[in-house]
Amino acid sequence: MIPYRFISTRIDPLRLLIVNKPNPKFTIISYIILDDRLPIIILIICNTCLLYRLRRLPTITCLAIAIVLFIGGILIGRFAIPRPSNTIDISTETKHSEEEYINIWNNFKQQFLDSISAQEIENNLRDYAQKTHLAGTDDDRLEAEIIASKWRGHELDVTIHPYDVLLSYPDPIQPNIVSIFDPNNNLIFQSNGSESIFNEDDKTLPFHKIVRPFLAYTTNGTVRSQKLFYVNYCTMDDFRFLETVLNKDDLNNSIIICRYGKIFRGNKINIAEKYGIIGVILYSDPIDVVPSSNISNLTYPNSIYMPEMGQQRGSALTLSGDPLTVHYPSKDYMFRTPIDNNPNLPKIVAQQIGYKEAREILIRMTGISVISNWTGGFHQVRYVYGGFLSDNLSIQISSYNTLQIRRIHNVIGTITGHIEPDRYVLIGAHFDAWNFGALDNGSDWKPRRSLMFCAWAAEEYGIVGSVEFVEEYAKILGSRVVSYLNMDVIVEGTELMFMEMSPLLYDFSIEISKQVKAPYTTETIYEQWIRHNNGEKDVGKTFFTMGLSANSDYAGFNQIVASSNLAMIYKNQTIIKNIGTYPLYHTQYETFRLVKEFIDPEFQTHQAIARVIGLAAFTLTDIDLLPFNPERYHQALVDLLTLTKSVAPQSINFTSLQIAIDQFKNAATQFNYRVQTTLDKSNPIQLRIVNDQLMQVERAFQNPLGNSIEQSTLKHTIYAPSRTNRYNARGFPTITDAIEDRNITNIQQQISIVTYFIHSAITVLQSPNKIQSI
Amino acid sequence: MIPYRFISTRIDPLRLLIVNKPNPKFTIISYIILDDRLPIIILIICNTCLLYRLRRLPTITCLAIAIVLFIGGILIGRFAIPRPSNTIDISTETKHSEEEYINIWNNFKQQFLDSISAQEIENNLRDYAQKTHLAGTDDDRLEAEIIASKWRGHELDVTIHPYDVLLSYPDPIQPNIVSIFDPNNNLIFQSNGSESIFNEDDKTLPFHKIVRPFLAYTTNGTVRSQKLFYVNYCTMDDFRFLETVLNKDDLNNSIIICRYGKIFRGNKINIAEKYGIIGVILYSDPIDVVPSSNISNLTYPNSIYMPEMGQQRGSALTLSGDPLTVHYPSKDYMFRTPIDNNPNLPKIVAQQIGYKEAREILIRMTGISVISNWTGGFHQVRYVYGGFLSDNLSIQISSYNTLQIRRIHNVIGTITGHIEPDRYVLIGAHFDAWNFGALDNGSDWKPRRSLMFCAWAAEEYGIVGSVEFVEEYAKILGSRVVSYLNMDVIVEGTELMFMEMSPLLYDFSIEISKQVKAPYTTETIYEQWIRHNNGEKDVGKTFFTMGLSANSDYAGFNQIVASSNLAMIYKNQTIIKNIGTYPLYHTQYETFRLVKEFIDPEFQTHQAIARVIGLAAFTLTDIDLLPFNPERYHQALVDLLTLTKSVAPQSINFTSLQIAIDQFKNAATQFNYRVQTTLDKSNPIQLRIVNDQLMQVERAFQNPLGNSIEQSTLKHTIYAPSRTNRYNARGFPTITDAIEDRNITNIQQQISIVTYFIHSAITVLQSPNKIQSI
Repeated sequence: MIPYRFISTRIDPLRLLIVNKPNPKFTIISYIILDDRLPIIILIICNTCLLYRLRRLPTITCLAIAIVLFIGGILIGRFAIPRPSNTIDISTETKHSEEEYINIWNNFKQQFLDSISAQEIENNLRDYAQKTHLAGTDDDRLEAEIIASKWRGHELDVTIHPYDVLLSYPDPIQPNIVSIFDPNNNLIFQSNGSESIFNEDDKTLPFHKIVRPFLAYTTNGTVRSQKLFYVNYCTMDDFRFLETVLNKDDLNNSIIICRYGKIFRGNKINIAEKYGIIGVILYSDPIDVVPSSNISNLTYPNSIYMPEMGQQRGSALTLSGDPLTVHYPSKDYMFRTPIDNNPNLPKIVAQQIGYKEAREILIRMTGISVISNWTGGFHQVRYVYGGFLSDNLSIQISSYNTLQIRRIHNVIGTITGHIEPDRYVLIGAHFDAWNFGALDNGSDWKPRRSLMFCAWAAEEYGIVGSVEFVEEYAKILGSRVVSYLNMDVIVEGTELMFMEMSPLLYDFSIEISKQVKAPYTTETIYEQWIRHNNGEKDVGKTFFTMGLSANSDYAGFNQIVASSNLAMIYKNQTIIKNIGTYPLYHTQYETFRLVKEFIDPEFQTHQAIARVIGLAAFTLTDIDLLPFNPERYHQALVDLLTLTKSVAPQSINFTSLQIAIDQFKNAATQFNYRVQTTLDKSNPIQLRIVNDQLMQVERAFQNPLGNSIEQSTLKHTIYAPSRTNRYNARGFPTITDAIEDRNITNIQQQISIVTYFIHSAITVLQSPNKIQSI
Repeated sequence: MIPYRFISTRIDPLRLLIVNKPNPKFTIISYIILDDRLPIIILIICNTCLLYRLRRLPTITCLAIAIVLFIGGILIGRFAIPRPSNTIDISTETKHSEEEYINIWNNFKQQFLDSISAQEIENNLRDYAQKTHLAGTDDDRLEAEIIASKWRGHELDVTIHPYDVLLSYPDPIQPNIVSIFDPNNNLIFQSNGSESIFNEDDKTLPFHKIVRPFLAYTTNGTVRSQKLFYVNYCTMDDFRFLETVLNKDDLNNSIIICRYGKIFRGNKINIAEKYGIIGVILYSDPIDVVPSSNISNLTYPNSIYMPEMGQQRGSALTLSGDPLTVHYPSKDYMFRTPIDNNPNLPKIVAQQIGYKEAREILIRMTGISVISNWTGGFHQVRYVYGGFLSDNLSIQISSYNTLQIRRIHNVIGTITGHIEPDRYVLIGAHFDAWNFGALDNGSDWKPRRSLMFCAWAAEEYGIVGSVEFVEEYAKILGSRVVSYLNMDVIVEGTELMFMEMSPLLYDFSIEISKQVKAPYTTETIYEQWIRHNNGEKDVGKTFFTMGLSANSDYAGFNQIVASSNLAMIYKNQTIIKNIGTYPLYHTQYETFRLVKEFIDPEFQTHQAIARVIGLAAFTLTDIDLLPFNPERYHQALVDLLTLTKSVAPQSINFTSLQIAIDQFKNAATQFNYRVQTTLDKSNPIQLRIVNDQLMQVERAFQNPLGNSIEQSTLKHTIYAPSRTNRYNARGFPTITDAIEDRNITNIQQQISIVTYFIHSAITVLQSPNKIQSI
């Protein structure tokens, strides 16, 4: 069993939803941050393309607006105080002593932290959540202009970045359905194609206009089979196990039913396709989304758990960015790979259903009973591997999805750095923030580097947009971005903060955590970690995940830009294990009341996260010496090696990799020593040289060719998703992929290539005064 | 007909041969620069591996020692004067006015130019050329240590870089031969397998130990056929034409005979292989290497022309670097692609012969007479396309080449920059220079950037070594190298200097040419150009080639590092057209007397070249604002577009590329305007930012994935060799390759990709203060 380093256990967080109502006829949903792709796509559809058929509920995602407002507002409006860094500002006359700068910085920091109010976050959010979110269709450009105009009002330097990307929509009239027929073609069962509406929810919300559940980018058509198999979570391991139970050929031309969880849904469909399966039915099994099934008052609207007709929407695309312009931006001049036979698009029909509906299907299956860990939560259903349906029944999936090229727009607002304008820190803070920023108008804050607020049209449409942006500007982002702070994962609970990061940001993250109070306590986040860690101070082992995956907007920054990035989330310890998200993820039940009643009643968690993100962004933008510690990367490499060895065949020789990691340690230690003992921070070029080295450590791990010919968009050789699950950030992905294949030669080859990139990172850390052989 | 932008017409230049005699038992050939790969490989063999069988003649290549001595010596020893740049030196107390710096610079420049003496170059060379060059075999490491020790004595910071690379050798006993048999298996003709020795040459030279002619990396074995075809220069066009004359299947399992010239020999063999040919015989046709055949006093030893048994050695490898570790350095940890069935190695037998021998073969051929431009220079031979040999004869090639992995060492000597030590200028100047550097000891010269003298073990062994070095340090070289100055092409004649360069260096090259006197005249090189250009001042159009190919040590710097590079050569106007080199290229007749008697009797040309290279290296290392002009890249793109359109099908749409080029012009003009009007050179960070942008223009054109899956080691999208000739630097190589294939879809796709990289270069040139959509 390959170690999945990061199977997301986030319960979705907040999403950021920026709403604007320029005239009575329509409201613009300008910006949304979600923790997965599909809902964003849906929103965009409704926003720009399908106004006549789609509306958007004020969901849990709206909550994050408050955070956006606050971070943006405070950064823009409030930081009108002297720069707190101890950088020598060569452009000003007045010089401060190191001590003076520290005082200024401390004062500034306190002002910033104090300025973030939980009550205001809640108020702002409630305000936004009351609005309907019907969007215009012909006014995408206009919307971007309005956003840009607002930002300009706040003295941000605004640029707009349009792309024409391939998106996917369900039919507005005809729902996608799953049916069962008897031998005489009589309909025995038919799925509803939508979720239930509850009385407890706000009646003013336009439930009737919400987009129906569908799996974006899956093909349309109708498939029918008398053979139906149950493949558990549809992981590669599940399929391999199934092969031991039945004849592999049996799967050919069959339909399968799988439960959500463990891996990215797109990989489930992709693996099924390779097995010759013609249709995939997905559902959330009760065991994964409710504490105990068949007890309706345990589910929404009475809890955070999924009701029987709840259905997770989602994309089935197994790469990031527009599938027609892989590696390149979707600009008008760019060649598009034809849609027909496009290797990047799913080729089979797939559709999700509610678990109430899944039960109707499961009870009609035949075959051997499954092993215990394949068993789900239905009490009176025998889970079987399947085969021919009982009573000569047949099962059918009908899908009416369409693919369409649509224009999207990114808006980027920049506060230009006054010393190093060509060094960029980017955060997922959003234009809407500038509404609140107006509370404290003026933009006297002149950070050392440039700070960019990225309103991903990209993100509105899912990961497609941010990746197109990164592709378009790959060259300059690759040489200039210091860090990207992703706001995709923010709050899913109130108990503990978890962080995903480049190992370089390990110590930095701990520093930030010492400066922010945890929600609903009097202790700092750091103190909270220590307490939950039995007093053990190495909190990173418990609360940090090293490396980031490709399942959010950081994808392009991790894999293409190769900057050192950071993401964070507050969540609870009691989570349901396999689903990989919170139970109501991508359902229509992500409402404001869900958050207010069940998740973060006093909004203190949002307040804490806002403080963490703001402080991190501010510090990275203005600090003179970048707070990256390469020694932490050494520890991460050691851990990965241990893990990788544990799953590798005995015959594999890891010596060269081990030596390279040891050498990396020396290089990192010596680098840090040199910086501590010889760096003259008052020499701007010396400082720049050291910072350039720090910026290039992560980049040294990037394979420009991509990790393989098949995975050429994934380039980070230390952390990248595996071939069979885009949700995880697997360590040494090419080696572990080769281990999965039990290809001894390829394992050794990949070990040597990873060794090479570690050597490359060593060369980056060595004194640049000469080129030293390792 | 595809426009070959650069079919090399160099007559081989000088090669640099560094010789050391640490004890009476052996002499070390430490460093050689040749203008192609094979002879270097041979030398290395003799140097480090095969001492018992190979010695090295003092050839024409030795001449360049003088240049090495002078550039190295003067740079190291003589520049003990104040830095002449107008950079604000933040590390010193004293500041000079702009005017003072200009005066210092002018004085320095004059000192440097005056210090280069033609007589000393000649003396030094003669001294070296008198030594035999037998080399040790077990002392490669020791040799590198001795070199390094010398360099250290001259206060260079020295690093050594070993690689274990696949090399190729002929058998020391059994020569490779071509034979003709009659139907009874009687031997009718057999080639000699070696070149003739002349009385005129120095009798103390060990002619009997020179390596025999062979084609490195071609497979060993014996092939025999009754079918023999003549395929002119063996270009792709030649083969395509031959297909119109005879049945393509006729070529299957045949042997072919081709003449040297027009394209790289490795491509001839590679194309033949694809046609199912089992053996290739190469020869230099008299029409290409002597003014008129059968007149022996017109050839060497009486002239620069090839005698009847002269044979060009050479490598048949169609990629750069060790073929077993493509993309990666040949370090001990690195996985090696197995030799068997290695796609990067030639799979067929091939051997060269003298033209006296070729005549014996040609007269026994049958078939239709060839068209006029396929006809060679033999007076009483009917050139035919071939078919079955006359009289049921059969032809056989026997080759005894072997492949062996051998250790090589690069030595790099660095003068560390005192302001920007992490910015590198590299030149092909060599350790041996430091012998002469002793004349003017001391190394007080502290340039702004780091200057590195690269003693390519890589180069000694051919392009393999320098590419391995670049592969190993790709990450740091990619971010730090300003320029690589290649010393592979130096002198082939005395009349005119020609330069190959990144278009960014166009104006810089003209500036340098104005400051150096042309050989054997009183005018400057620039004035000489104007005079030969009928007074026309745009001398670049005549004397500059934009872009560099992959057929020299700049290959790795052009394609992998993507720095902006420069190479130069002095040659004569009267050259023989098709051979692409000087007639005695890679023969054993490249002797000192050849140069002294026929090429550069007073060594003034070497003096001029030494001045050009030294001045260029010095200026690039020390000048504050890099002298790169992006507007010159615009003109180069315009020229390439015109050329490409002229060969493309009418239906191809070049609009997006045209627009991108127009936009590039605006970006370049605006960049230059911003620099002129707003750059504060006294602000070190502002200066660094602008220089970073200039360094990244060339890098923006680099496709990290490579130009195609098959050509993944070639990454420059504006200039790279075509698939069928590694000698040229073709413009828009991916587009022209697609045009050759007449694949309309792929042409459009490649146009869009090139457009993308031009867009990328535009983003690099834009103000870094924000990210601007184009």
